[in-house]
Amino acid sequence: MSIALVISGIRSNDWKTEILNLLPGTKVEIYPHIEDFKTVDFILAWKPDQGYHNQFPNLKVIQSAGAGVDHLYLDLLPEQVTICKIVDPMLQKDMLEHVLTCILSSMKNFPDYFSDKCLKRWRPQEYQTIEDVTVTVLGLGKIGSYVATGLVRFGFNVRGWSSSPKDLEGIACFSGQGSLYESVRDADFIINILPLTADTSGILNGYFFQACGPGTVLLNVGRGGHVVDRDLLEAMDSGNIKAAYLDVFQHEPLPEEHPFWQAKNLFLTPHVASRTNIKSSVGQVVENYKRMMHNQPLLNEVSRKKGY
Amino acid sequence: MSIALVISGIRSNDWKTEILNLLPGTKVEIYPHIEDFKTVDFILAWKPDQGYHNQFPNLKVIQSAGAGVDHLYLDLLPEQVTICKIVDPMLQKDMLEHVLTCILSSMKNFPDYFSDKCLKRWRPQEYQTIEDVTVTVLGLGKIGSYVATGLVRFGFNVRGWSSSPKDLEGIACFSGQGSLYESVRDADFIINILPLTADTSGILNGYFFQACGPGTVLLNVGRGGHVVDRDLLEAMDSGNIKAAYLDVFQHEPLPEEHPFWQAKNLFLTPHVASRTNIKSSVGQVVENYKRMMHNQPLLNEVSRKKGY
Repeated sequence: MSIALVISGIRSNDWKTEILNLLPGTKVEIYPHIEDFKTVDFILAWKPDQGYHNQFPNLKVIQSAGAGVDHLYLDLLPEQVTICKIVDPMLQKDMLEHVLTCILSSMKNFPDYFSDKCLKRWRPQEYQTIEDVTVTVLGLGKIGSYVATGLVRFGFNVRGWSSSPKDLEGIACFSGQGSLYESVRDADFIINILPLTADTSGILNGYFFQACGPGTVLLNVGRGGHVVDRDLLEAMDSGNIKAAYLDVFQHEPLPEEHPFWQAKNLFLTPHVASRTNIKSSVGQVVENYKRMMHNQPLLNEVSRKKGY
Repeated sequence: MSIALVISGIRSNDWKTEILNLLPGTKVEIYPHIEDFKTVDFILAWKPDQGYHNQFPNLKVIQSAGAGVDHLYLDLLPEQVTICKIVDPMLQKDMLEHVLTCILSSMKNFPDYFSDKCLKRWRPQEYQTIEDVTVTVLGLGKIGSYVATGLVRFGFNVRGWSSSPKDLEGIACFSGQGSLYESVRDADFIINILPLTADTSGILNGYFFQACGPGTVLLNVGRGGHVVDRDLLEAMDSGNIKAAYLDVFQHEPLPEEHPFWQAKNLFLTPHVASRTNIKSSVGQVVENYKRMMHNQPLLNEVSRKKGY
C-alpha cells in the first residue's frame, strides 16, 4: 500500500512533507518517480496528464488536491476507483474574500482610479453602496452557498441559482435550467462558482449574456470552460456586460495572443481566488487514506454522474 | 430669517431643492447671490473662502455640509456663532466600504494584477487572509469607531487609537500621545480617520513612520494635513511603509507636479471615500434650522476647543 502524488506545479514536496507528518513511515512517492506502480492504491492528483491512471493497476482512490475534479478525466476512470475532492473551510473563506475584493473594486471604480493615476487625472466618480447592490451567485454547492450567505452577511441583496433546489436564509433561490435567465435579470454582479460538467460547459454564452444587463459585471471564479470567450467579448462590446473579473481560463496561463489581455474593462487574476491550503486540507487526505485501508466510506466522495 | 448656502462645488442646487422640500416657503439663497446679507442667520457651508462669515452680520449658526469642520476657519468665527457638523449614517457606511475596498485590494495584490494585465504577465502571488490581518484605526469618533467595529465584524484583528480613552468591544483601544506608536507597531494596515486639529496636523510624519512597519500599508481618509508628504515618500523608499492608499490631500485636486502622482505603490482616489448623502442628511440641517428658530440646543454641535 502506498500513496502517489500526481500533481502538476510546484507543490508536490509540500504535500509530501505534510502527509508524512501525519503518516510517518508511509510510502509517499512523487510521480513519475514511482518504484513499483502495482503497490500504489491511493493517488493525490492535481491536473494530471490524460491516461495517468492506466499506469496504476491496483488503484482504489483518486483524491483531488482541490475542490474541483473536472481536471481528473472522470469519464475515463475505471468503475472501481473512488473519487474524492477537498472541502476546505479556508478555500471557502478565501473565495468569499476574493469575490468581495472584485465586487468592491468595481463598485468603487478602483480600476478607473488606477489608470487615472498614470494619466495624472483627478476624476471623482459616483460610487455604488452595498445595500443597493444585487448579486446573483451561480452554483450553490459548498463554496457557492458559503459565498452567497457571506455576501448576505455583508449586506448585499443576494440571489442564487443551482441545478437542484436549495433553501438558504436571506437568499432568493432559483433552480433548474428554466429559471437561469430569470435569476440574473438586472443583477449588478453575477458570480460563477458552478462545477464544470457536461451540463455547465459553455453556460456563460451569448444567450446567457443577452439575459443579463445592461450594466452587469461578471465574475468567473468557476472554470474557464464555463465561458464562451468570444461571446463574452461581444457582450462587453454591446454593453450587456459592463465589466468582467476573470480568475480562470480555458488554457492557463492565459496565452499571450488571447484577446482577453487587451479587452477594456476586463480584469484578469491568474487563478488566485483560492488556493488549497495544504496545512488545513492534509487532514482530509490522510483520513481518506486511512478509511480506504479499513474499507470505510470516504469523505467528500464525488458523484461521477453529476461530475462534482 | 433665511438660509444661505456657501458651498464650493456643484451641489448647491441639490441642497437647495432638498431643503425646500422640507421647508417650503423658506428663503434659501446660494452665495454670493444674497438679496440682503442682514437677514441671513443660518449658513450651510462647505469649503468656503476665508472671511466669508464677515459679510453676514446676524449669523447665528454655521452648519457644515459634511462631517469635517476643519474647512470652516473655526478660529476666526465670532463667539456667538454655533457650529454644527453632519453625522450621517450613510457617511459612516460609505467610509467603511471604501476602507474595506482599499484593504482587500492590497491583501489580494490587485494593483499588481492590474499592471500585470497591461504587460500580459501571468504572475500568481501569495495573498493575505482577513483572519491574519491586523488593522489599527487612528481616530475613534463617530466614523472611526463605526469603521473599527465594522472591521471586527468582518473578521479583522483591530486596534484603535484616540486622544481620549474609548472602550469598544473586540478592539484593543489605545489612547493619548504616549501610546500612539505602540498602537501601530507591526500593524498590517493603518487607517487615519482623525479630525484635523492643531494637535493632529502633521501627525503622520517621519517619527510616526519609523514606529510602523516594515511592510505597513497606510490608508489616509482623514485629511491631507495629517500627512507630511515628504516624510511619507521617504518612508516608502525605506520600506517602512509598503504602500499607501490616499483619498485626501493638502491641496485638492492634487496638483499635477506633486510627486505622489508618480510614486510607486502609492494609490490615489480623488476624495471619494464618502460623500455626504444630501437626501439622508438634509433632515439634520432642517432640524437645526428649526431648533435655532426656537432657541433650542442644536444637533451635532462642534467644540471649538477640540476642533471637532
